[in-house]
This record gives sequence, C-alpha cells and structure tokens, in this order.
Amino acid sequence: MTAPGLPMTVPAEGLPGRVRIHEVGARDGLQNEKTAVPTEVKAEFVRRLADAGLTTIEATSFVHPRWVPQLADAEQLFPQVAGLPVDLPVLVPNERGLDRALALGARRVAVFASATESFAKANLNRTVDEALAMFEPVVSRAKAEQVHVRGYLSMCFGDPWEGPVPVPQVVRVCRALLDMGCDELSLGDTIGVATPGHVTSLLTALNGEGVPTEALGVHFHDTYGQALANTLAALRHGVTTVDASAGGLGGCPYAKSATGNLATEDLVWMLQGLGIDTGVDLGRLVATSVWMAEQLGRPSPSRTVRALSHQEQ
Amino acid sequence: MTAPGLPMTVPAEGLPGRVRIHEVGARDGLQNEKTAVPTEVKAEFVRRLADAGLTTIEATSFVHPRWVPQLADAEQLFPQVAGLPVDLPVLVPNERGLDRALALGARRVAVFASATESFAKANLNRTVDEALAMFEPVVSRAKAEQVHVRGYLSMCFGDPWEGPVPVPQVVRVCRALLDMGCDELSLGDTIGVATPGHVTSLLTALNGEGVPTEALGVHFHDTYGQALANTLAALRHGVTTVDASAGGLGGCPYAKSATGNLATEDLVWMLQGLGIDTGVDLGRLVATSVWMAEQLGRPSPSRTVRALSHQEQ
Repeated sequence: MTAPGLPMTVPAEGLPGRVRIHEVGARDGLQNEKTAVPTEVKAEFVRRLADAGLTTIEATSFVHPRWVPQLADAEQLFPQVAGLPVDLPVLVPNERGLDRALALGARRVAVFASATESFAKANLNRTVDEALAMFEPVVSRAKAEQVHVRGYLSMCFGDPWEGPVPVPQVVRVCRALLDMGCDELSLGDTIGVATPGHVTSLLTALNGEGVPTEALGVHFHDTYGQALANTLAALRHGVTTVDASAGGLGGCPYAKSATGNLATEDLVWMLQGLGIDTGVDLGRLVATSVWMAEQLGRPSPSRTVRALSHQEQ
Repeated sequence: MTAPGLPMTVPAEGLPGRVRIHEVGARDGLQNEKTAVPTEVKAEFVRRLADAGLTTIEATSFVHPRWVPQLADAEQLFPQVAGLPVDLPVLVPNERGLDRALALGARRVAVFASATESFAKANLNRTVDEALAMFEPVVSRAKAEQVHVRGYLSMCFGDPWEGPVPVPQVVRVCRALLDMGCDELSLGDTIGVATPGHVTSLLTALNGEGVPTEALGVHFHDTYGQALANTLAALRHGVTTVDASAGGLGGCPYAKSATGNLATEDLVWMLQGLGIDTGVDLGRLVATSVWMAEQLGRPSPSRTVRALSHQEQ
C-alpha cells in the first residue's frame, strides 16, 4: 500500500485563492509546553518553518520571564532568526516589552487583549478597558516607528467563566484596537467552543460596524474538534489570514492544560484540497513537526502529522 | 473555572433544521478495536446510545466470524437489543448473512461496496462489478421482505493504492446500488483524505445523474482532521444523514490501523452550535463514551469527549 499522497484538488466556489498562514507554534505553542526547549532548538525550529514555506512566523514573546519562563530567552533567540526572509512578529505585553523588541530590530509586534472581563482579570489583572489603555501607548509608539501591529483578541466566542460571549461585546473591543492603530486583528476562540454559525455571525457584525474583512485573522483552537469547520466558515466569509501551530504545538491531547491550537498541517491539508495557495511544502512541514516532537519527547497531536508520519515509517 | 457548557447556538443560513445521525460505533467502531468486548458490554453500549437519544444505531455485522472475530457474537447480541425503540441496521455481506439477520428479525440491513477495484479486491476478493453482482440478490430479497437497505460505498474520495478517485467512477457505482434497490447510500471517505471542495463536487455530480440528496448519507474519517469541515460542506449541500462513531471508536489516534471515524460527540457539538436538531443529549453521550473507553482500557480519541470529561474531573 502506497501513501495516498495529497488530496484531489477541487477548487470550491466563493473561497479565496490564497491564504496567509500566521504560524504561532514557536510562540503560542512553545509557551504552553511544559518541556524547556533550548534556544538553539527554537532557532532551528523557526528556520525549518521558514524553509517549509511559512512566511509569517511568530518568533517569541517579550513578556516578563516570570510570567512565561518558557520564552525567557527572547533576547538570545531573536537575533539568531532575524535575518530570515520572512515576517517575524513578536508578542509585546507593554511598553517595556516593546522597548526590548524594538532594540533588537523587530518590525512586527502583537498585543494581547481580551474580549471578556473575566479573562482580562485572570490574564492581565486589569479590566478590559484598563488593558486597552495599557496597549494604547504601545501601539502608538510602534506605529510611530512604522512597525506593524497585530491585536490578538482572546475569548471572542466563549469564556470559561462567562459562557457564550455576546457579539457586540467583541465588536466593541475590536473597534477599540483598530481605532488605536492596530493593523490587523486575530479573533481568538481561546477555549475552542465556537461553531461555524457563530463565526459567520461575528464576522458579519464586524463588517456591519465598518471593520473590513482584510483586517481580520482567525485563531481557532481544536479543543472540541471544531477548528477546521470554523476556518471553512471564515474562508467563505472572505478571511485570508489564519493562525495555526505547526504540529498542533501547545495542545497536548491528554493534558488538562491543552490549548488545542489548530495544527498547521491539518489546515494546509484542507487548503491544498480546496485549491487555495499557501506556499507551504506539506512534506517539509510534517518533517519539521516530527523533528520538533522528538525534541519535546511526545507525539504531535496533529492528525495529519500522525497520518503522514505513520506512512513514512 | 466552571465548564464552558454548550456553545452559543447560532443558526446558519442554508443548513438543514434536523440531521439524522447514523451511529456506527457498535459495528464499525468495535470491529476495528483490538480489545475483545463481551456481548453484555456491547448490548449495554447500544442501550446507552439509545438512551442518549440516538435513533439509528448500527448494531453488529453478520459477516463470517473468520473475517471479523470481534463481531462473531451477532446472533447472541442482536436479540438483546432488538426491543429498543430505535432503528438497528446490521451489516450483511452476502445472502448467508442476510439469512442470519432476517432469522433474528432485522428490519434494516446494509451492504458494503467499493468504488475502487483495488479495495474491492483487497476487501472482498472480487472486482467492483463482481461485488455488485454478489449484492444484487441480497438487496432484492431484502426488498421483497420490505427490509430497508443501506449501501455503503468505500473509497469515494481517495484510495490508498489508486490515489484520488475520479468522481464519475464513484457515480457509476452509486447508480448501480440505487438501481438494484438500495434505499440509501453512505458515501465513505475510508482513508480520510477528502476536503470540502471534493465533497461538494461529488454530491453535485450525483445530483446531475439523478441521485436525490435525500438518498445520500456521508461517512467521513478524521484521519487528516477533515471530517467536520467535510460534514459542513455536505450539510450546505442539503445532506441530512451523517455517520459517526460514539467516542471516535475504531480510531485510536496512535495506532497505525487507525480508521479515524468521526466522533459523534464532535459532530453533535457542531450541530448544536449551528442550531441543528439531532435529538441527542450530549452529556449522556459523553458519559457513554467515557464508560466505553473504560471497558476498552484507553482514552477516547474524541476531542469533545476529552474536553468535557476533563472538565468533569
């Protein structure tokens, strides 16, 4: 029995011809892994992701090491990958983080807001509006330096404390992030509870408030297996920026702490089958995730990685 | 942190109001599990599935025990569940199997055809047309007894030996199964490689050849994580019969033999969020799958089962 190879490509009506994958494995993935990863391995990971054709690779986070010790080596890592011919956004939680990122020459940064009060309190120890006020000088200084700013927005669909999140509440925070100067938003389903109708509903409401679809990316988690169905709904709405994590990093399937990031490979499999260009070489990407899984000492939770690497055994 | 509960229900345009889930865990699931399951446990499993609101529960298979030893107890099992107020289809590979099923009072049977020559040869040791000839008297005798007949069709999208399967080849076998009297078809993506455009393409071609969507069910595998996205495409096309396996039975995520059945819980999560009625009580279904996983001695591969049962811990 030979490998089934790639799926039949059948372009589907009403879908974009190209999707930009915002690869979050090296940041969102590794910051949720318990295993400490040496800086050299992280740098090699980013290099391999770039070699696999990913063009936007979130590299690390300039948060205080006390909060995210897994990424405490941001100063050492960033210079090792800065020369790669790809976009390398980094997370900055505040002005101190922005200073550190700018000092190293970062040209793309991201801030991390919350659509709900409960998560703003838990994650940032602030109200939603206090967090926005904290980001305002970060964004305005970045824009003054002509640095591209992404605004992550967590809990856009459901919140573990508050349940389903009302669409108008999400729209308000999106509007605030764009008004302060964010170039793009990433709508996060942080606990993975969203379903496709909810996705379409939020995107439609945002358009109704004057937010163009081009400014929107989607960030789905596979906690309940919904990430690709939700992605399909977003693509049908015209979204062309999709966040994913190589190998599903950050989402160990049997851990209670699973974040359940959508695996980049599962996304690429679907997009290739739909005739949507991503620039990614799936074989190289799978090989990269298999290699990274070896570094972490556990198998990848990505179904596509498991299926294709089993076939290679 | 409390459980996030059910997703926000947001009815999506162009989708059916109700979906019938054809539950295959007790047959397609258990026949692919290595663990031998006692007949009493199987009967209890079927009872619990019915109690969770599933109305079509494929109970077992009347194949020769040499082929599928896991289901060699069909004669003992069926009478134990036959009184349940649900439909209980059973698989019959040939006339001998039909005799056994009819003798026990089965009112719904299923035959299992292949869209590709390679799989017909591997699974049935026949050509596609020889297999159809074998099913012809099975279907005609069943219809003479006013027994409902489902025709499974494997390898409708990709085949491990032949690669992508041409749509006209699938349409031809579908037409033959309907012409011989099958009441409904189940279009199987046996190796899980399909993507949503391919699904829409096949369904459209079938309609073009006079096959009504009402006669079609879909049977997706999650081998590459595509099952729910493919289901969404089928729902948008008007399909209202979806096969799934409670707890994802039959698809151990780390086994090379993984069949990767779509987990019923992941399906129900999506359908509930889309405002589509299934009659299923998700909490009871998850509890059933957790119980069955204990019998099998391994965790369920369903993401929704894992997410909800973790929260209950």
